[in-house]
Amino acid sequence: MGGDRGPGEIIRGALLAVDEYDLETILLGPRELIEKELTRAGCPDSGRRRIHIEHASQAVGMEESPVEAIRKKKDSTIMVGFGLVKQGKADALVSAGNSGATMAAAIKKLGRLDNVIRPGIASIFPTLKSPVVIMDVGANVECRPQYLFQFAVMASSCAHVLFGNQSPKIGLLSIGEEAGKGNTLIKETHDLLKKSSLDYAGNVEGRDVFQGNVDVIVCDGFVGNICLKISEGLAEAAMKMLGQEIKKSLPAQLGYLLARKAFRDFRKRVDYAEYGGAPLLGINGIGIISHGKSTALAIKNAIKVAVDMVDNRVNDSIVATLARNNLHP
Amino acid sequence: MGGDRGPGEIIRGALLAVDEYDLETILLGPRELIEKELTRAGCPDSGRRRIHIEHASQAVGMEESPVEAIRKKKDSTIMVGFGLVKQGKADALVSAGNSGATMAAAIKKLGRLDNVIRPGIASIFPTLKSPVVIMDVGANVECRPQYLFQFAVMASSCAHVLFGNQSPKIGLLSIGEEAGKGNTLIKETHDLLKKSSLDYAGNVEGRDVFQGNVDVIVCDGFVGNICLKISEGLAEAAMKMLGQEIKKSLPAQLGYLLARKAFRDFRKRVDYAEYGGAPLLGINGIGIISHGKSTALAIKNAIKVAVDMVDNRVNDSIVATLARNNLHP
Repeated sequence: MGGDRGPGEIIRGALLAVDEYDLETILLGPRELIEKELTRAGCPDSGRRRIHIEHASQAVGMEESPVEAIRKKKDSTIMVGFGLVKQGKADALVSAGNSGATMAAAIKKLGRLDNVIRPGIASIFPTLKSPVVIMDVGANVECRPQYLFQFAVMASSCAHVLFGNQSPKIGLLSIGEEAGKGNTLIKETHDLLKKSSLDYAGNVEGRDVFQGNVDVIVCDGFVGNICLKISEGLAEAAMKMLGQEIKKSLPAQLGYLLARKAFRDFRKRVDYAEYGGAPLLGINGIGIISHGKSTALAIKNAIKVAVDMVDNRVNDSIVATLARNNLHP
Repeated sequence: MGGDRGPGEIIRGALLAVDEYDLETILLGPRELIEKELTRAGCPDSGRRRIHIEHASQAVGMEESPVEAIRKKKDSTIMVGFGLVKQGKADALVSAGNSGATMAAAIKKLGRLDNVIRPGIASIFPTLKSPVVIMDVGANVECRPQYLFQFAVMASSCAHVLFGNQSPKIGLLSIGEEAGKGNTLIKETHDLLKKSSLDYAGNVEGRDVFQGNVDVIVCDGFVGNICLKISEGLAEAAMKMLGQEIKKSLPAQLGYLLARKAFRDFRKRVDYAEYGGAPLLGINGIGIISHGKSTALAIKNAIKVAVDMVDNRVNDSIVATLARNNLHP
């Protein structure tokens, strides 16, 4: 029931994933509405062998307070969904709804992994090389060095299972590459990372984010969320500005037509939809937050992220790495 | 002596400004080197009526610690230059060198304006509408709400004198538009701004930065610096990615040629060089930090920013607005 494009788009994404990844899916929401949308999406009753519906009468709005929403709406899609994960009836939940509420529902229903102080949200950014996993992008706006250290561990396990890096290289987001640069939080986190068994490459700056020289970037949720949003905003604004310039002349318009495929491939390369979802890390189960604007393709890819995390047992890896790097907080 | 392109580029920028804005300039650095570069830039002895040279034997490197640099290098360009400003022999200083050291030298030589707790660095970002002044972008990595409040006052005066807005609209950078969203620093700053005489529009998100719906955006120097660097990094990476896609096909290359002017105009629109420098605000004088990569054009535009700030008495405006909004810290 989340997502700005309505349930039809999400259902189409789920159907794509069912076909492509050979899995079963449970659609959460008002049963009648889902049945109608399934039919509209070209999936009649007879074609629903691997599609299940779990009725949930409520949905959490994008602007609702997460804590209140999960307290009041026990029959919301995210609460019912994480309930299924808890009972072992589902392996993972994907939601394009309210991220704060999805995180709160995950913690409420599933709890934290052993030794995790604060679960967080990771996000996968495109770069000039391989994608980079950035954590936290919004769950924890007030952080201690121990949280950031654990984000490094969790994002590192995530990069490992998603991209197959044996030993993901970790950067700490700061305002200068030298160890002494940054605020107190960064300096103390730097000391913790340096002493750890992780492959820590030191501080990275904002300008390094899209270079792809590290596999993981660690920051607090306030900074990470602003990075995510400013990047989305800039990409959108830049395309709009370029479009305005192109519209000003006929040769430029013709040129654009000729280069259209290059533009499309470029957009594909920087599009969040290609990477799908933002994994919730640190919870005792698998949850993926998908962008509110998610297209069917983005939903399909978010499901793929969930599949990879389940298949490669990301949580076992997190628990083991945390145990090896116990901070005794 | 700052700037990645060497003194020649900076001198060319200064010469452009002298011609275009009808002003005199003092070039700071080793006298002989400057004389040689002036001649190379096509400005012989006889053409130097409005060009002066002030000898400074030292230069601060980009990687030097600001505090140490200004203590040890009394005869560096920035120390000598702010000395001239202090003595009233110059109206402003423009530097493309080490920003931390430039700020430290400004505070050391000029001191703070009345009631200013922490001076900071403002930066001018392009948007879909008018440019926005963002402050702080790196001078203060650990902030209290009172600092951010004063950044709002100072950046607001700056937007007023640079862009002629009678009452610049101020946004507070956070991770949600509602008043309750953000960390403690943001929530407390929000309360201060709400009670003030400023035109405060509430929280803005990262995605709003390039929309141009506010004239000023306030944040701490850690967050602001990351915003600045991530935007530069993304713009660069995106152009590189688009270039790679275009190179893959002949029609796309032809298309690019046809649309080249649109690309150039687009780049001009997003280029930091068009806006010139980052004003130091809160110091008792005028100082502008120019990007290390500054071209002659960027230097010329940074000088224009300095001229506007001097002509429109930005510091009088800051002092008056602070007096009206005294926080009794």
